[in-house]
Amino acid sequence: MEKEYSRIYLILPEIKELIAKKEKEELKEIFKDYEPVEIAQVMGEFSLREKVYLFSLWDLDFAADVFEKLDEEEQIEILTTIDDVKKRGLLNELAPDERADLFEELSPEIAERFLSIMKKEEAQDVKELMSYPPTSAGGIMTTEFARVRENMTAGEALEELRKSAKDLEMVYYIYVLNEKDKLVGVLSLKELILADPEKKIKKLMHRNPITLPVTMDQEEVAKRIANYDLLALPVVDENGKMKGIITVDDVIDVIREENTEDMYKFGAAGKHSEEYMKMRATTIAKNRLTWLVILGITGFFSGIVMQKFSFALESVVSLAFYIPVLMDTSGNAGTQAAMAVVRGLAIGEVRLKDIWLVVKKEIFIGGIMGIPLGGITLIRAIIFQRNSLLGVCVAFSMLIAIVTATSLGSLLPLVCKRLKLDPAVVSGPLITTILDIFSLTIYFGVSIFFLKI
Amino acid sequence: MEKEYSRIYLILPEIKELIAKKEKEELKEIFKDYEPVEIAQVMGEFSLREKVYLFSLWDLDFAADVFEKLDEEEQIEILTTIDDVKKRGLLNELAPDERADLFEELSPEIAERFLSIMKKEEAQDVKELMSYPPTSAGGIMTTEFARVRENMTAGEALEELRKSAKDLEMVYYIYVLNEKDKLVGVLSLKELILADPEKKIKKLMHRNPITLPVTMDQEEVAKRIANYDLLALPVVDENGKMKGIITVDDVIDVIREENTEDMYKFGAAGKHSEEYMKMRATTIAKNRLTWLVILGITGFFSGIVMQKFSFALESVVSLAFYIPVLMDTSGNAGTQAAMAVVRGLAIGEVRLKDIWLVVKKEIFIGGIMGIPLGGITLIRAIIFQRNSLLGVCVAFSMLIAIVTATSLGSLLPLVCKRLKLDPAVVSGPLITTILDIFSLTIYFGVSIFFLKI
Repeated sequence: MEKEYSRIYLILPEIKELIAKKEKEELKEIFKDYEPVEIAQVMGEFSLREKVYLFSLWDLDFAADVFEKLDEEEQIEILTTIDDVKKRGLLNELAPDERADLFEELSPEIAERFLSIMKKEEAQDVKELMSYPPTSAGGIMTTEFARVRENMTAGEALEELRKSAKDLEMVYYIYVLNEKDKLVGVLSLKELILADPEKKIKKLMHRNPITLPVTMDQEEVAKRIANYDLLALPVVDENGKMKGIITVDDVIDVIREENTEDMYKFGAAGKHSEEYMKMRATTIAKNRLTWLVILGITGFFSGIVMQKFSFALESVVSLAFYIPVLMDTSGNAGTQAAMAVVRGLAIGEVRLKDIWLVVKKEIFIGGIMGIPLGGITLIRAIIFQRNSLLGVCVAFSMLIAIVTATSLGSLLPLVCKRLKLDPAVVSGPLITTILDIFSLTIYFGVSIFFLKI
Repeated sequence: MEKEYSRIYLILPEIKELIAKKEKEELKEIFKDYEPVEIAQVMGEFSLREKVYLFSLWDLDFAADVFEKLDEEEQIEILTTIDDVKKRGLLNELAPDERADLFEELSPEIAERFLSIMKKEEAQDVKELMSYPPTSAGGIMTTEFARVRENMTAGEALEELRKSAKDLEMVYYIYVLNEKDKLVGVLSLKELILADPEKKIKKLMHRNPITLPVTMDQEEVAKRIANYDLLALPVVDENGKMKGIITVDDVIDVIREENTEDMYKFGAAGKHSEEYMKMRATTIAKNRLTWLVILGITGFFSGIVMQKFSFALESVVSLAFYIPVLMDTSGNAGTQAAMAVVRGLAIGEVRLKDIWLVVKKEIFIGGIMGIPLGGITLIRAIIFQRNSLLGVCVAFSMLIAIVTATSLGSLLPLVCKRLKLDPAVVSGPLITTILDIFSLTIYFGVSIFFLKI
């Protein structure tokens, strides 16, 4: 999150003065015009004493909105400092999904202590949310949503909503549950407001709404919500009982996180993190090193190929001059193809059943690119080495190496997908390293044949 | 968009039968329970005749919702087939942002003809939206939003909203404009519903809402909306006059598009496209070839370095065996560092002012990784070449090359950012190719020194 966004920086001195003077009303008025995110962003500028003062000052629901946007460290700092009444209030008021995230970070003792002072049902809620894997629909959903019964009228439903709306984060979709808490329909607040107040919900609602199973992976959840252009989707358990909702703003975070993960995988940079600046250099090094070692070991084979063909190098040293360009270009062509397929799979544009279509396409692409690229190397060899036979070797190797690169680069992510592995592990560096072995073998093979070494 | 999502596939035969029998009411009832996206996804399964029948059958606003989710090709096909009354209705009913996107695709003559049958104000609206660059806030915003005056009461505002809501895509934020259409405040529908009906909007609204300038780039827009966790943000012109809103679902598309763009850049795959499957192989080849040639030319320098030091290779052929692993590992380490910084900049976690902090960190990371990686090559040289002096050369070169890789890999994206270039152009392949030149020079320099060639 970028601090530059918060407009509160400009009035920080003024706020600090008002806190010193304990001008309660004025302070409340000032904060009303800012978004919770903005306020959370400047919290670091206040002393712990000032923070606690502000949180005691604000209404519980406003305090909870700001609190939810803080880092978990700041949250814990504040919670362990404010008095028990406020602590209890805040813990009960927090959005269930944000609260569960906080509890994940607490030590078992502190979690237990916090749970003991909370309302029974809220504590139960925390325990239930924590029982789902953090990257599943259950792990990211919130349990508070607007619910009505199908035999209510629109007017009654609106009245019901007015009573519960204050505590709800998302009131814009209203879910119709039967007596067994099974989801039977949905309607939007817009539809409810526009409807004749006498009309029954049963007549207004859309039946069989789209649902997310509680066990679904968050990446799939994000794809669904993005696909339907909805503000939220309901989450149900295996019996169709509605357990919660996932809202679009949670999904944006998931999309960002999943994209970072994909990019880190694609760059073979190990375990991803959105906190590069905060992470220790040794941790980053450790994360990256694993991949470098794996790639290095794969790279040994390139060395073995070179060693095997060293007689060719000894007899024609200038063969070595074209090794870098050949390895680089085929590696790059393979990276391009792999990237296109990995991304296509991620956004759902390329599908597993297209596998042969894709590979055929990439062979063709490789051929089209290989001809001019081979041509350039041919000309280079004629000019610099004055050796057209060597040029033909390099050019021909280049063509074959590039076709191999594009076809293998596109095939590998698809094979991973079929084997239920993440296609993104076929990263640029991995495909480059694998292709080096192929390119060198092709190059030496072609050269030995043409140059009759 | 993945076709698998649409639940309508299961009942397609039934629908086709109902169309054949012209069962109007039953058809309307069936479609009510599906999302517009789902219906749009199966449109390709119907004949043009069936499509036109369905679009004539549906209410205008439902027809518009489905129409907006179709490909532009399908939209044009339907628009040019349905009768003029329906065409006029549909064109007037479409969401302004989606409609402007459609008009971008039309030939000038067809656009002119369509504009001539539309309502004057709607036609004016299309022209205005088309005057903004397509990737600016103005280019992605919609011009329809809920507006009230500050001296209305909450009850009056709700009544006003009831009248206009039917035509609005987003009714959940209500914008308070003054007589000059300047934005003075905002409140949510939730707040409006919860408020005392007698209370003045002036007292309820949040003043000085966050706004987006009409000229802001869509990437920045997406960051802001994601950052604030809001469902929409208002767009204003240079005079503070409110021009439209950008909703969170538009932003999800932008985030996806920008991520694809970044990944394509990072993979040096040229112009990005989310339509890999549809694009012709020759077009893809052309897009990628530009980069391969640029990289190939940069790679020539590696060849020149090799040639310059060929005397060393001639004297110790086994030096060549370690070229692949050295080039690969430094290229990979550089890619990892570049990727972390490019991603960090994209999500706003790394900032330009952190430049020296980042480079210092990466030098340290490079050092930590270089020692074990150098060690492995040392052992390899001792075992396979039984030459510990060669091993020391390779190990030492590896260490220096990796530190160079991580520091340069992190520095280049930051330099690009400072020069107002897109950091993502410092792609994996580019950094790899640049680092090859460095690695080879380091390797030969070190070897000549230690081996006294």
